[in-house]
Amino acid sequence: MTTSTTHTPHVGQPELPSTMRAAILQRQGEMTMEKLPVPQLEADQVLVQVAAVGVCGSDVHYYEHGRIGDYVVDHPLILGHELAGRIAAVGSSVDPARIGARVAVEPQRPCRTCKQCKAGRYNLCPDMEFYATPPVDGAFAEYVTIQSDFAYDIPDSVSDEAAALIEPLSVGLWACERAEIKPGSRVLIAGAGPIGIIVGQAARAFGASEIHITDIAEERLAFALEHGATHALNARTDSVEGLDVDAFIDASGAPQAVHSGIKAVGPAGRVVLVGLGADDVELPVSYIQNREIWLSGVFRYTNTWPLAIQLLADGKVDLDILVTGKFGLADSEAALTAGKQPGQLKAVVYPGR
Amino acid sequence: MTTSTTHTPHVGQPELPSTMRAAILQRQGEMTMEKLPVPQLEADQVLVQVAAVGVCGSDVHYYEHGRIGDYVVDHPLILGHELAGRIAAVGSSVDPARIGARVAVEPQRPCRTCKQCKAGRYNLCPDMEFYATPPVDGAFAEYVTIQSDFAYDIPDSVSDEAAALIEPLSVGLWACERAEIKPGSRVLIAGAGPIGIIVGQAARAFGASEIHITDIAEERLAFALEHGATHALNARTDSVEGLDVDAFIDASGAPQAVHSGIKAVGPAGRVVLVGLGADDVELPVSYIQNREIWLSGVFRYTNTWPLAIQLLADGKVDLDILVTGKFGLADSEAALTAGKQPGQLKAVVYPGR
Amino acid sequence: MTTSTTHTPHVGQPELPSTMRAAILQRQGEMTMEKLPVPQLEADQVLVQVAAVGVCGSDVHYYEHGRIGDYVVDHPLILGHELAGRIAAVGSSVDPARIGARVAVEPQRPCRTCKQCKAGRYNLCPDMEFYATPPVDGAFAEYVTIQSDFAYDIPDSVSDEAAALIEPLSVGLWACERAEIKPGSRVLIAGAGPIGIIVGQAARAFGASEIHITDIAEERLAFALEHGATHALNARTDSVEGLDVDAFIDASGAPQAVHSGIKAVGPAGRVVLVGLGADDVELPVSYIQNREIWLSGVFRYTNTWPLAIQLLADGKVDLDILVTGKFGLADSEAALTAGKQPGQLKAVVYPGR
Amino acid sequence: MTTSTTHTPHVGQPELPSTMRAAILQRQGEMTMEKLPVPQLEADQVLVQVAAVGVCGSDVHYYEHGRIGDYVVDHPLILGHELAGRIAAVGSSVDPARIGARVAVEPQRPCRTCKQCKAGRYNLCPDMEFYATPPVDGAFAEYVTIQSDFAYDIPDSVSDEAAALIEPLSVGLWACERAEIKPGSRVLIAGAGPIGIIVGQAARAFGASEIHITDIAEERLAFALEHGATHALNARTDSVEGLDVDAFIDASGAPQAVHSGIKAVGPAGRVVLVGLGADDVELPVSYIQNREIWLSGVFRYTNTWPLAIQLLADGKVDLDILVTGKFGLADSEAALTAGKQPGQLKAVVYPGR
Repeated sequence: MTTSTTHTPHVGQPELPSTMRAAILQRQGEMTMEKLPVPQLEADQVLVQVAAVGVCGSDVHYYEHGRIGDYVVDHPLILGHELAGRIAAVGSSVDPARIGARVAVEPQRPCRTCKQCKAGRYNLCPDMEFYATPPVDGAFAEYVTIQSDFAYDIPDSVSDEAAALIEPLSVGLWACERAEIKPGSRVLIAGAGPIGIIVGQAARAFGASEIHITDIAEERLAFALEHGATHALNARTDSVEGLDVDAFIDASGAPQAVHSGIKAVGPAGRVVLVGLGADDVELPVSYIQNREIWLSGVFRYTNTWPLAIQLLADGKVDLDILVTGKFGLADSEAALTAGKQPGQLKAVVYPGR
Repeated sequence: MTTSTTHTPHVGQPELPSTMRAAILQRQGEMTMEKLPVPQLEADQVLVQVAAVGVCGSDVHYYEHGRIGDYVVDHPLILGHELAGRIAAVGSSVDPARIGARVAVEPQRPCRTCKQCKAGRYNLCPDMEFYATPPVDGAFAEYVTIQSDFAYDIPDSVSDEAAALIEPLSVGLWACERAEIKPGSRVLIAGAGPIGIIVGQAARAFGASEIHITDIAEERLAFALEHGATHALNARTDSVEGLDVDAFIDASGAPQAVHSGIKAVGPAGRVVLVGLGADDVELPVSYIQNREIWLSGVFRYTNTWPLAIQLLADGKVDLDILVTGKFGLADSEAALTAGKQPGQLKAVVYPGR
Repeated sequence: MTTSTTHTPHVGQPELPSTMRAAILQRQGEMTMEKLPVPQLEADQVLVQVAAVGVCGSDVHYYEHGRIGDYVVDHPLILGHELAGRIAAVGSSVDPARIGARVAVEPQRPCRTCKQCKAGRYNLCPDMEFYATPPVDGAFAEYVTIQSDFAYDIPDSVSDEAAALIEPLSVGLWACERAEIKPGSRVLIAGAGPIGIIVGQAARAFGASEIHITDIAEERLAFALEHGATHALNARTDSVEGLDVDAFIDASGAPQAVHSGIKAVGPAGRVVLVGLGADDVELPVSYIQNREIWLSGVFRYTNTWPLAIQLLADGKVDLDILVTGKFGLADSEAALTAGKQPGQLKAVVYPGR
Repeated sequence: MTTSTTHTPHVGQPELPSTMRAAILQRQGEMTMEKLPVPQLEADQVLVQVAAVGVCGSDVHYYEHGRIGDYVVDHPLILGHELAGRIAAVGSSVDPARIGARVAVEPQRPCRTCKQCKAGRYNLCPDMEFYATPPVDGAFAEYVTIQSDFAYDIPDSVSDEAAALIEPLSVGLWACERAEIKPGSRVLIAGAGPIGIIVGQAARAFGASEIHITDIAEERLAFALEHGATHALNARTDSVEGLDVDAFIDASGAPQAVHSGIKAVGPAGRVVLVGLGADDVELPVSYIQNREIWLSGVFRYTNTWPLAIQLLADGKVDLDILVTGKFGLADSEAALTAGKQPGQLKAVVYPGR
């Protein structure tokens, strides 16, 4: 965890406290509340007073396992990367008029100079610093810093929770973009958890005419049908083969769902794998070859916040319906485990409470 | 095998024999020479007197196994789908001036009215009739018919053998197009058999600056280096991981080559699987996801003959170097087994001999 | 005008009359009603009993000027290319089960064998036969023929008029596709006539968040705001420069609207010219260069009927609101001149009346 | 002209002079030699000792007219934006190992944070600082600064002159990329000046099979035929209409060449306007519409240096053949007027001489 000792606000900026509260993952399974220095601003950054933070499956995974793949929590780490708040101070090269603005934060800091960044694929930047990914701290804290252009103004009509959940919405929008969902598309989504529901809403916003969703929990399927999906299938009993959809987006990470989902795709269709599962998965390769299907995954997103904010402002997606648990900062550990209960979709932590 | 009893040439067309010789796969492992009626022309077709036919791995597979996947040789079948010849007669709606033209044949008959055909993806037509795929006859015969627009004029500078091998070249061109090979691309090809060599030449024609090729046979690698590849790697001893290429094209069908080849691809790269292997293959899915790699296969090709002919005419590819065995029609069975010898790449059958 | 003397229905098909009524443009400005043979079916065609035909600006232009560009009405011609009806008979290779189906007709017959057709751009086929374009007859008649795959089944919920107007809707959809309208796009449309209104609805269906439309008639602007547009501008008084839209679609054909509309486009934006005007138009070329804007037009459409039908069925577009005049076949001439009245958008002719 | 008083080299860097010579455009038509402070490095920049600078038409235009469009030389300005040299010092965040490297300079400084930059279109950045564009100084000087990632290492086999001319080559590569030149493409280029010759070489590197070039000077056409073009046409006597090319790239800026060049393009073809001419040009709009041709321009380039260096290293383009005049820094004014002589293509200034 990177810390800093002093905070030098822009001249004429409001007085800020020098310390803040943060919930810290000390190691696998151990969270503590600490008092830390408020992080120091770089010239192009803003300091955001965090209003709401969504709990993501990756936060839970770091808490439970102490690692994700090669990323190991070997030093204390602040989790949380789905966040919104209010700009409390700005760096020396940022317009002070931004102070006070309500913003949704895109929680990544690409290098901006590598081949990927300069080609517009900054999500693939090898030097990316991403919130809550060791050793980069996240947002279960009163304050965070972010480059000014990654803090997006949000209209009053968008709640703090919805603004925080633009982060997972971005995953869904990016998946739909890569899956080339367009008006009239027929789509299959595997998994009716938070990401599956979001992908369904995103697909609807992209104009899909049929949105089939699969899960093994009937109440999740019912919820999906209320919020974007047009057809629900129980993965235990219903087959998807032969659906001949234009696109399959996996939000389950389950190998058998991926395998059968691919076999639901028609010629020249697309498969986008969002869910994380095993490193190696057996795929129906000859099926893919014979239909010239394109298969890929999403790794975060690029340039999705403006569209997400537009869709929220226009009422074309609804993220508030995902929030099933609300927690103060001191209850972050409870927030991380809340998703285990049936019927829970998204826990939100409020660092100001 | 479809036969017909009479041939009605266009008025004023040269006299044609009413029967022809053909090499027929009676069943798995049994070839016979037969006398058959010359096939009857439909209005939009031309009758091609076959000059040369290349032997493809799929021909060999039908001969040895009597089937490929769901395609079963349950009736006598004429093999061969890589062919060139001379137009001997034309259907009633075809310009008689075409008679006498040397042509390379694209051996497929799409329906032209389905969604895939009308979108320009006729290779994915569900009603496709493809040469030498049960129950559609191929070209180990003196005459074949094809829709006139699928018989392409070839210049004098292109040999019969090269014109026949435009078919496998088309696979290579289509793979390079789908892999988005362009000037400066860095490419990895697995397998230095006929298709691997062709893909290498195609990649060079598309402007690739680095063409890495892998195989386990040193003499194949040496040959590849002479004909397009810039780097050769022995798959037994050399690792390709970390190459960070823009595209990986598999021409081996070997699961371990596919798996390690994918791990040689850099962010936003492309994988195109040409080689046929098992229906299901274990792929490094999280690697694909984390780099947003696109993976697909090729299923034949669309609209590749004009480019292939141009590249041959310009000397940018050389297909004659692939021919390592020449056989008369009566020796078709020998042609089908010739590829087993070391150093053999392509056997060609000459139905006129 | 092509005629034929006999009609040979498919065996077992219902009896059809041998003659039909048709409204014929004899020459510039002269329409007559005639009795003609019902057109003869080719094997892959269906005979459609026409229920409704929309009047297009090009029909009016042929009537008033006797030509459009190089297309000259030098023989009697049946106008009308926006049509729907019911299948009355089918050609020998078409499934007789189609008889009785309500269909929307895509009024073009591409060759299916040229480079453009095989690449999926059949609208650019140099041998296209398009309805109501000399010397190809159109649909102001009781019966027409069309290739079976260009007669699309429509659901009961879609009216005859709406089904006929899928043709102009297709122009709008094709324009939006070429303009790359997508969720969140900001679009400018010049001209609030029938095509402008349709483009606005299509843009909304493609997810555009801002749809600015310009016209000089306030009542047209008011109507546009009720049916898709989000902002209306009076071209006489309001400037569009600086709007910085993602796409500009011209549906006016007015040179000054085109010129100023282009200057409303932001960097990397798109301009699609739908309206027909002068052969040569002065364009702000350095503006286009400095922003790397792409400019093109639409020439009819390809593969748009399925999406159009889906959008109609889903209620995402409403074509019935465009119909402002209804005419029997004998009143076709009145239908052609109806659009001159203020407040008129679309006249529809009912050949069965 | 921005100047700075001191230069603070990286600790341990070689001693640098504090002043340098520069050729300065004082105002329209007046050049002087001055002694200036060596420019100060920012943290992410390198200081390049300039070895060679090509003279571009825009340099000549500023010299002769004192402005280009809205860009006015109202303060003294250093011209020159085609350059190569050697890294003499590095900013505090740049690896000192770069010192001594021979580099080609991409002469632009995008903001990296705007919508265009983050989408990979940094050439369209509204806050771009581009060399030799008022008020940003260029390279007719002994030293310049540039962000480290815009200084590209060049191999020994590439001359200083060729490395400098990567800048205009980049224009040609970018034009070919936007024109979608690919293997087998048929291309028309208008204008056989330096840019036309470069576009021809770039098109050849992209695999074009036919490269038609037009000019009114026979010696330019002859030169073009030696260096990439396959067909030469005299614009005074030869017509290009009906060529039906896949792409037309204008490198002339002449309105009549643009107009007739567009009419040489076939259906679905592309037009890319590189040459600068009048703000408004009369274009054959109905021709563009009827063939659904896409038309755009190039505004500088993005991410072209790596490919350019690769093509130079592989010998696929030859820029040295363009150099027809060599000048010391004190003779910059002569270099700016050299291009008026017949047979002159590119003047190069050597600031070290």
